[in-house]
Amino acid sequence: MYELGVVYRNITRTDAATADALARYGSATVHEAMGRVGLLKPYIRPIYAGAQVSGTAVTVLLHPGDNWMMHVVAEQIRPGDIVVAAITAECTDGYFGDLLATSFMARGAKALVIDAGVRDVKTLTEMGFPVWSKAISSKGTIKATIGSVNIPVVCAGALVHPGDVVVADDDGVVVVPRALAAKTLEAAAAREANEGDKRAKLAAGVLGLDMYKMREPLEKAGLRYID
Amino acid sequence: MYELGVVYRNITRTDAATADALARYGSATVHEAMGRVGLLKPYIRPIYAGAQVSGTAVTVLLHPGDNWMMHVVAEQIRPGDIVVAAITAECTDGYFGDLLATSFMARGAKALVIDAGVRDVKTLTEMGFPVWSKAISSKGTIKATIGSVNIPVVCAGALVHPGDVVVADDDGVVVVPRALAAKTLEAAAAREANEGDKRAKLAAGVLGLDMYKMREPLEKAGLRYID
Amino acid sequence: MYELGVVYRNITRTDAATADALARYGSATVHEAMGRVGLLKPYIRPIYAGAQVSGTAVTVLLHPGDNWMMHVVAEQIRPGDIVVAAITAECTDGYFGDLLATSFMARGAKALVIDAGVRDVKTLTEMGFPVWSKAISSKGTIKATIGSVNIPVVCAGALVHPGDVVVADDDGVVVVPRALAAKTLEAAAAREANEGDKRAKLAAGVLGLDMYKMREPLEKAGLRYID
Amino acid sequence: MYELGVVYRNITRTDAATADALARYGSATVHEAMGRVGLLKPYIRPIYAGAQVSGTAVTVLLHPGDNWMMHVVAEQIRPGDIVVAAITAECTDGYFGDLLATSFMARGAKALVIDAGVRDVKTLTEMGFPVWSKAISSKGTIKATIGSVNIPVVCAGALVHPGDVVVADDDGVVVVPRALAAKTLEAAAAREANEGDKRAKLAAGVLGLDMYKMREPLEKAGLRYID
Amino acid sequence: MYELGVVYRNITRTDAATADALARYGSATVHEAMGRVGLLKPYIRPIYAGAQVSGTAVTVLLHPGDNWMMHVVAEQIRPGDIVVAAITAECTDGYFGDLLATSFMARGAKALVIDAGVRDVKTLTEMGFPVWSKAISSKGTIKATIGSVNIPVVCAGALVHPGDVVVADDDGVVVVPRALAAKTLEAAAAREANEGDKRAKLAAGVLGLDMYKMREPLEKAGLRYID
Amino acid sequence: MYELGVVYRNITRTDAATADALARYGSATVHEAMGRVGLLKPYIRPIYAGAQVSGTAVTVLLHPGDNWMMHVVAEQIRPGDIVVAAITAECTDGYFGDLLATSFMARGAKALVIDAGVRDVKTLTEMGFPVWSKAISSKGTIKATIGSVNIPVVCAGALVHPGDVVVADDDGVVVVPRALAAKTLEAAAAREANEGDKRAKLAAGVLGLDMYKMREPLEKAGLRYID
Repeated sequence: MYELGVVYRNITRTDAATADALARYGSATVHEAMGRVGLLKPYIRPIYAGAQVSGTAVTVLLHPGDNWMMHVVAEQIRPGDIVVAAITAECTDGYFGDLLATSFMARGAKALVIDAGVRDVKTLTEMGFPVWSKAISSKGTIKATIGSVNIPVVCAGALVHPGDVVVADDDGVVVVPRALAAKTLEAAAAREANEGDKRAKLAAGVLGLDMYKMREPLEKAGLRYID
Repeated sequence: MYELGVVYRNITRTDAATADALARYGSATVHEAMGRVGLLKPYIRPIYAGAQVSGTAVTVLLHPGDNWMMHVVAEQIRPGDIVVAAITAECTDGYFGDLLATSFMARGAKALVIDAGVRDVKTLTEMGFPVWSKAISSKGTIKATIGSVNIPVVCAGALVHPGDVVVADDDGVVVVPRALAAKTLEAAAAREANEGDKRAKLAAGVLGLDMYKMREPLEKAGLRYID
Repeated sequence: MYELGVVYRNITRTDAATADALARYGSATVHEAMGRVGLLKPYIRPIYAGAQVSGTAVTVLLHPGDNWMMHVVAEQIRPGDIVVAAITAECTDGYFGDLLATSFMARGAKALVIDAGVRDVKTLTEMGFPVWSKAISSKGTIKATIGSVNIPVVCAGALVHPGDVVVADDDGVVVVPRALAAKTLEAAAAREANEGDKRAKLAAGVLGLDMYKMREPLEKAGLRYID
Repeated sequence: MYELGVVYRNITRTDAATADALARYGSATVHEAMGRVGLLKPYIRPIYAGAQVSGTAVTVLLHPGDNWMMHVVAEQIRPGDIVVAAITAECTDGYFGDLLATSFMARGAKALVIDAGVRDVKTLTEMGFPVWSKAISSKGTIKATIGSVNIPVVCAGALVHPGDVVVADDDGVVVVPRALAAKTLEAAAAREANEGDKRAKLAAGVLGLDMYKMREPLEKAGLRYID
Repeated sequence: MYELGVVYRNITRTDAATADALARYGSATVHEAMGRVGLLKPYIRPIYAGAQVSGTAVTVLLHPGDNWMMHVVAEQIRPGDIVVAAITAECTDGYFGDLLATSFMARGAKALVIDAGVRDVKTLTEMGFPVWSKAISSKGTIKATIGSVNIPVVCAGALVHPGDVVVADDDGVVVVPRALAAKTLEAAAAREANEGDKRAKLAAGVLGLDMYKMREPLEKAGLRYID
Repeated sequence: MYELGVVYRNITRTDAATADALARYGSATVHEAMGRVGLLKPYIRPIYAGAQVSGTAVTVLLHPGDNWMMHVVAEQIRPGDIVVAAITAECTDGYFGDLLATSFMARGAKALVIDAGVRDVKTLTEMGFPVWSKAISSKGTIKATIGSVNIPVVCAGALVHPGDVVVADDDGVVVVPRALAAKTLEAAAAREANEGDKRAKLAAGVLGLDMYKMREPLEKAGLRYID
């Protein structure tokens, strides 16, 4: 499924305005706006709480225990990108630490999403470089085998094409295909538009049962109340 | 084992004074006071550190990927309750977010304990609504199948009856059956009464070996010291 | 593999200066300095973020659900020690809480590393006593079966001899055999010496590809760039 | 939630004819007949393929690493019973081997379902004593702490009362409450009655789409065919 | 990432001769022939030992706990196909049993690969219909939500396009993209061609060290022998 | 903890008569005879049922995804040995298949125990070469980094020295240190000597409660019978 040993230098990124604008809606709203698809598995967690970002994906495929391609992908980063790293087999080693983060930040990367481990998390937190990973591990890697950069990859169960939008926050990570980004942004904004009103009603004690008119369908579905 | 499609409106809650008083002893002391039983499995974790609560259980049984009954249980909440949510099969989807939390808080709920996932955790943290869950996940749910409210449920390995007391903190979650609540409160208070004295002695360098008079039983059990 | 029912009182500790000095390099650098070995499995996690310590190992072998030997090992602690606790079978029970932590601190222990669960984590955090554990659990233990103190143990996949150095931080835990401690300290210092220079270059936009002269070996390995 | 240190000698078992008759329908059909509830979690697996049994539950609650109560429950077994063993915390130790199986068989037990480990599986297979367990492990247990016999227990996520029916096969284990056993038997028989006809149609190439008249509801749900 | 609610009726399958011929080489040799990529994660296991098949993929995307689309995909099966089923979130429910297997076999399907659970495994084994799955579970599913058929899916970490070749045996499952199938078949045949000779030499006591001329590179890599 | 890049050619093996004789007692009895220690974790499982072996350990330490040292250890095998393979980080790749098995068998190896994956399991089963592993996986490995042979290793949580005895069967794997092998053999034989008598009594309906005189200690422990 993977083309090995290649680096695609020219990828078509989602336009920056759209990619950046998706961050404010968060991963939950964005995946709902897409029809409840596009999420990475929930074992991918942020290394620190509170970061909420979106950006265009540059992808890298690595081998277990080998982070050589991290240096190759660094050169392909443009400001506004989020690096998405997939591994050809399951691995929890620490592929990424403060030196690589320094390099990624210098290139303009906004974040890293990796289906493996990272290290130097205290320093990464101090640097404010957010990472979503499968594990935290001191375990170092070697530089022996080549993979690829900017090919489509499967990361934590989700297919990511270079140039797609990645939205990540404390709830998880969602991938928006480039072709759907503008439409998804609209749908996300529409979803959020009436949330304020709903929140006010619920805070005032109105029940979802009434606000969403659920009583009748629940009764039809057979729900019985017993005193 | 489960009665499906029913909502019990009248449940007998543990008296509020007892239910509320158990919080200060924490889940570890309370489960010890009950004879080391009643704990939910340790994969249930708080979404943020530092919350320590107790309250009376209202229970809800849901299906995988379906949070319809969350709106039904909301109506049954009274001030001082903690909602305990069980699922009929394993699921990590995000059943609960900031809108439902707004509704639960408006009804007087103190917390949610759920054997599945939740989302909007950054907002839940800001709202100060504590949740103990199996996962954090952006993944949304549908509203298609009915379950039940206020039937006995098994949540993370523990049997919970409506009206039982739930005690939750950073160490985990314990369920105290209504009939045992008063007695458990006494036992917990008794356990804690002499902890201050013990702590002072240990801080002064007295060994548990001496304070608990363990040297003789250890020798009888065959322990040998080698210089 | 284990001698049961014995307590070795006289162990040879790594000299304190070396043991203490390793902390500043952290678990990732130290394990690299040893040749990428010596790490405990990454499921061992700190109970709170930010602690970074090193010290000499005193070891204890316990049985599942039984923390009796925790009181025995307390007596063998000397200032600067880190207690390393192994269990004869997998267990997530809470072997250790604030009372034992008070005792350990009074004896001069710097930390606990345990291949099982701990509890009272809120209090432990307030006390500033760092613990690296497999789980957090309210579940209490009994005191019925003897194990051993200061024998070699396997903790989370790593062999630990009494007197070895343990280095622990947010990235994980590494064990440095006593005989290798001085050499490892030198190697760790050497690794770190030129990190500042590298970081400055990377921050200025120099690529690892150029700084580490990787372009030629990557080409030899067959990497192709496609425009 | 659990009463500790008690043995209930007189329990009301589901009548034998009903309990025995449920075996032929298997765990999948029986749980469907109950409304898709009552299953133990799927990590409970048979130690050998091909066994399919049902019987009345006698329950036992044990502590981690302690199988003392296995000998106590043996005395309470009557012909046609299936022993259901729950543990107060997670444990994979081998609680049960060929000697206990010999005793259980002599008492008339049909099977064991245990939320922990067993051993001597080669001999158990030769003896034809089926076991559904969480693990297989050589690890032995001690006899130090008492639990209970014939109290309601939670086993692998399912609530089991003494006297309920247990149905187990290669697909898993389901518990049928005594009060629902007769009705469930009828429902299971009804479900199976028309399976032969369905199977013949499907084998002849009729599609489920047509047999179950799904084409219209699928179209209503929005399904589109693209050539 | 997924287009929902669509069924592609016309897919381009790898030619049957190539697809069928790959079976004899097995998943290990085929994935090596592709450059060590294309494998599904190793948690996908056969429900019985000994089956070894290959065929053309028809894909189906389902929702957690909902097997409605299984009936839709059945109609798209042609002789020689292997159904590859992906789920939009993690689920272990039993999506597939003997009735669906009867239908699939009648349509000419060779096997099912599913990133979820199946049931009726005893009957499936007797029928000789091989399944590779994540779990075995009695848990039934509903028919409420539509997914898609013959879109690209991610199944157990691998991207599968309709018409790709699937090779499955006791070692696991590998996906060969249609465009690479012929070339992979050649490479697999070439790999196997000289295996007989190697096996004879190794059986005669020749060491891999000598047969593969590893002694010199090992020495260069620094390997030292100590007597 | 590990010396890297070395092969110890001269190891002291447990005498063959003792090593071979332990097989008949099986892993459960042998680990009991040692005081309930020495077991590998229960995730290590046989690739086929029914094998029961013992032999002297030759050890090999490998890196994740790299099986180069498998060829190095092959040369160090003597008839009666069991190869014990440890990995420096968690990995499920298939390190071992039918070619290496052919070589190992030609050297006289009785079995392989590996804390990672293996492949070609159908052929290994036909060859009758038993393997206990953590996983089965088609995933191949590379030959790039050296490890060590015949150093002490930690395999699945157990410390194994070269020359120790390994006993493996359907229940799991236990390691007997060379110095304890003779004594353990005696203790195992003694344990088994009176099992036949016990089995006969239990088969005749005598209860363990009476045979082991447990009624009094149970009563002292507080066990109450309720009619």
